[in-house]
Amino acid sequence: MFDAESYVRPFVLDEAGLTLRVLDQRKLPDEETWIEPRDVEAVAVAIEDLYVRGAPAIACVAALGLAVCVRAFDDEPLRFRAQLEQACVRLSNTRPTAVNLFVALREIREAIAALPADADAATMRAVVMSTAKAHAEGDLVSCLAMAGHGAPLLPDDGAVLTHCNAGALATAGYGTALGVLRRGRELGKRYTVLADETRPVLQGARLTAWELQHDGVPVEVIADNMAGALMAAGEIKAAVVGADRIARNGDVANKIGTFTVAVLCKHHGIPFYVAAPWTTIDLSLPSGDEIPIEQRKPTEVMCHGGKQLTPAGVGVRNPAFDVTPAALITKIITETGAYDPQEIAAAASERG
Amino acid sequence: MFDAESYVRPFVLDEAGLTLRVLDQRKLPDEETWIEPRDVEAVAVAIEDLYVRGAPAIACVAALGLAVCVRAFDDEPLRFRAQLEQACVRLSNTRPTAVNLFVALREIREAIAALPADADAATMRAVVMSTAKAHAEGDLVSCLAMAGHGAPLLPDDGAVLTHCNAGALATAGYGTALGVLRRGRELGKRYTVLADETRPVLQGARLTAWELQHDGVPVEVIADNMAGALMAAGEIKAAVVGADRIARNGDVANKIGTFTVAVLCKHHGIPFYVAAPWTTIDLSLPSGDEIPIEQRKPTEVMCHGGKQLTPAGVGVRNPAFDVTPAALITKIITETGAYDPQEIAAAASERG
Repeated sequence: MFDAESYVRPFVLDEAGLTLRVLDQRKLPDEETWIEPRDVEAVAVAIEDLYVRGAPAIACVAALGLAVCVRAFDDEPLRFRAQLEQACVRLSNTRPTAVNLFVALREIREAIAALPADADAATMRAVVMSTAKAHAEGDLVSCLAMAGHGAPLLPDDGAVLTHCNAGALATAGYGTALGVLRRGRELGKRYTVLADETRPVLQGARLTAWELQHDGVPVEVIADNMAGALMAAGEIKAAVVGADRIARNGDVANKIGTFTVAVLCKHHGIPFYVAAPWTTIDLSLPSGDEIPIEQRKPTEVMCHGGKQLTPAGVGVRNPAFDVTPAALITKIITETGAYDPQEIAAAASERG
Repeated sequence: MFDAESYVRPFVLDEAGLTLRVLDQRKLPDEETWIEPRDVEAVAVAIEDLYVRGAPAIACVAALGLAVCVRAFDDEPLRFRAQLEQACVRLSNTRPTAVNLFVALREIREAIAALPADADAATMRAVVMSTAKAHAEGDLVSCLAMAGHGAPLLPDDGAVLTHCNAGALATAGYGTALGVLRRGRELGKRYTVLADETRPVLQGARLTAWELQHDGVPVEVIADNMAGALMAAGEIKAAVVGADRIARNGDVANKIGTFTVAVLCKHHGIPFYVAAPWTTIDLSLPSGDEIPIEQRKPTEVMCHGGKQLTPAGVGVRNPAFDVTPAALITKIITETGAYDPQEIAAAASERG
C-alpha cells in the first residue's frame, strides 16, 4: 500500500515553506540532482526545460514554486497583487498543452481575488501557500483514488503497455497511469509492464523504467515502434496512459505517440485506458481539435544521448503531443471513477 | 535519371575483382569510412555488425565478398568445394530474416554444382565471381525497374512516409522504396519525404536522410511515434517501405515498426506500398508466421548516441523485424510490376 516516505516524488517543499526542491528529471536515471528555484523565472525555466514534466507535476511545481517566491514580493498590497499577476502570466507561458498548470494558477488567482481588497501581503502569501499546498495534496489524493478505480480493470497476467511517464514523477506522487499499474500489482495481479521508450525525450526508457524498478514492479523497455508486433503476438493485454488535457467530448491530448498506441489497440481489440485527474479535463474545449499542441525544439529529435545523429541541414518535426479521439478510448479513469469518454461531460455536470 | 557515378552505393568491387570495399554504414552520416573485408569471417562480421544492412545489399556483399575471398581457397578442387560450402554456411548464419542472402548463396552453390565434377579451382573462382556480379547487377536493374512501376502510384504532392532505409544504401544502388521515391520526384511529382527515424539503429534518421539529401530529394525526419499524428492531420498521402522477406500469401517481414505504419495507414485510408525485388519473395513459406524474426542485442535499445539511458538492471526487447499481413498492403511493387499482395503466388507461377 502507499507509503509516502518510500515512494518516488518529483518535488519536496520543506516544512517551513521556504524552499521547494525539484528533482532534475533530465538527468535521470544517471543522477539524482535536485534544484531549488528561488525566483519565478527559475520556476518557469524548470518547467520549460523539462527539469519537471508531466501535467499534474508541472501544476504542483508552478503553484508551490510561486508560493515560495511570493515571500520576496513587495509588501505593499497593490504592488504584491501586480507582481503575482505578472508571475502567473510568466508561468502560464511555459508550456501550452497540459491544462493542469492553468487550473492551479487560476485557483491561486481566485483565492487572492476572494480576499478583501485591503488584505495585506502576509495574508496573501499565506493564501497562496495554502492554495498551492491544497492543489498538491489534492493531486496525490486523486492519484490514490484513481488507482483504486483503475486497478480492477487491468488483466491478471500478460503485459500492460504504457507510454511516456504518467507516474510518481509526473504527479505529486504515486502517479496516474503508473499509480493504476502499481495498485494492480499491490492487489496481486501478475502482469508485467512494457514501457515505450517514448522518443524524443525518452521519458519511458529513463523515468518509467526507473520509478517502476524502484518500486519493484517488473518492467521492460521497448522502442516505440515495437508495441504493434508485441500486440500481434498476443503479449499485450491492455494499455494505460496519462493525459495532458481532455476535451469535453472525451478526446485526449497526451505525449506524442499515444494516438498510435490507441490505433494499435483498436486494431487488436485491446482495451486502451487513460488515467487522469479532473484537473486534466478541460470542459471549455468542445473537442481535441481545440487543444493547443506544443512544438518543441528540433534538437530533441536530432540528438541521441547528447550527440546529433541526423545529417546537418536535414529538418525534423517535433510535436510534443497528439490527440487520441474518444472513439479509441475504452475508459477514462479519474478519481471519481472510470467513465466512457463520451460520459465525461455528463459526469462533470453531476459533479457540479 | 539514373547516373551510376553520382548515386550513393554501399559497396564497390574494383575492376580486377581483387577487393570489395564496403561503406561502414554504422558511422554515417558523420563519417564515410570504407572497409575491405579480406576473408569470409570479415565479410560475415560486416553483415552481422551492420557495416552493411538492407536485404538486397547484404546478399550482394555476401556474394561479392565470397567471390573475392575464394581467391585464397585451396587450388585442389575437392578442398575448394569444401571451403566454399563452409563459407556459405558461415555467411548464411549471419542474419536470419532477409531471404535475399540465401538466394544469392544458393545461386553460387548451384552454379558450382552445375560444373563438371573435374572443374578446376580457377574455373570455379571465375564462376563464383560471375554469379556474384550477375546477382549485384541484377539487383540494380531490379531497383530501376521497380522505380518505374512504383512511381506512378505516388501522390503529386503532400508527404510520403518511409520507414528504415530501403535505399541505395540497402541495395546495389538506387534503392527499392527510395528508388520509387527518387523516380517519382524525377518525374516531376512534388511530394516531400518523411523519414521515420527507425529506432533502435536509426537507419531512417542517419541513412535515409543522408542519401535523400545527397540526391536533392526533400526529406524531414520524425520520431517513429509521430507518423500517426501527421496522418491524422492529413499531411501523409502514402507510405512506401522495403521488405526483408515476403511470404507466398503476401505477408511482408520488414524492419520493426513497419507493421505499425501499415496499421496507421489502414486506419486513415492511406495507401501502403512495399517495394522489393523478386529475390525478396520466398515462395517456400506459406505465410509470414513462418518467417524467422531476428532478435538483436539489448544494447541497441538501451543506448542512445553511444550512451546507455535505460536504468541498469531493466531489461529491454529488441526484435529487429515485424510482419505486416497482406491485408494491410495496397500493392507490392516488384521489377515486373505492382501486384496486390494476394496475387504474388499467381504472378510467380506466370514468371515460371
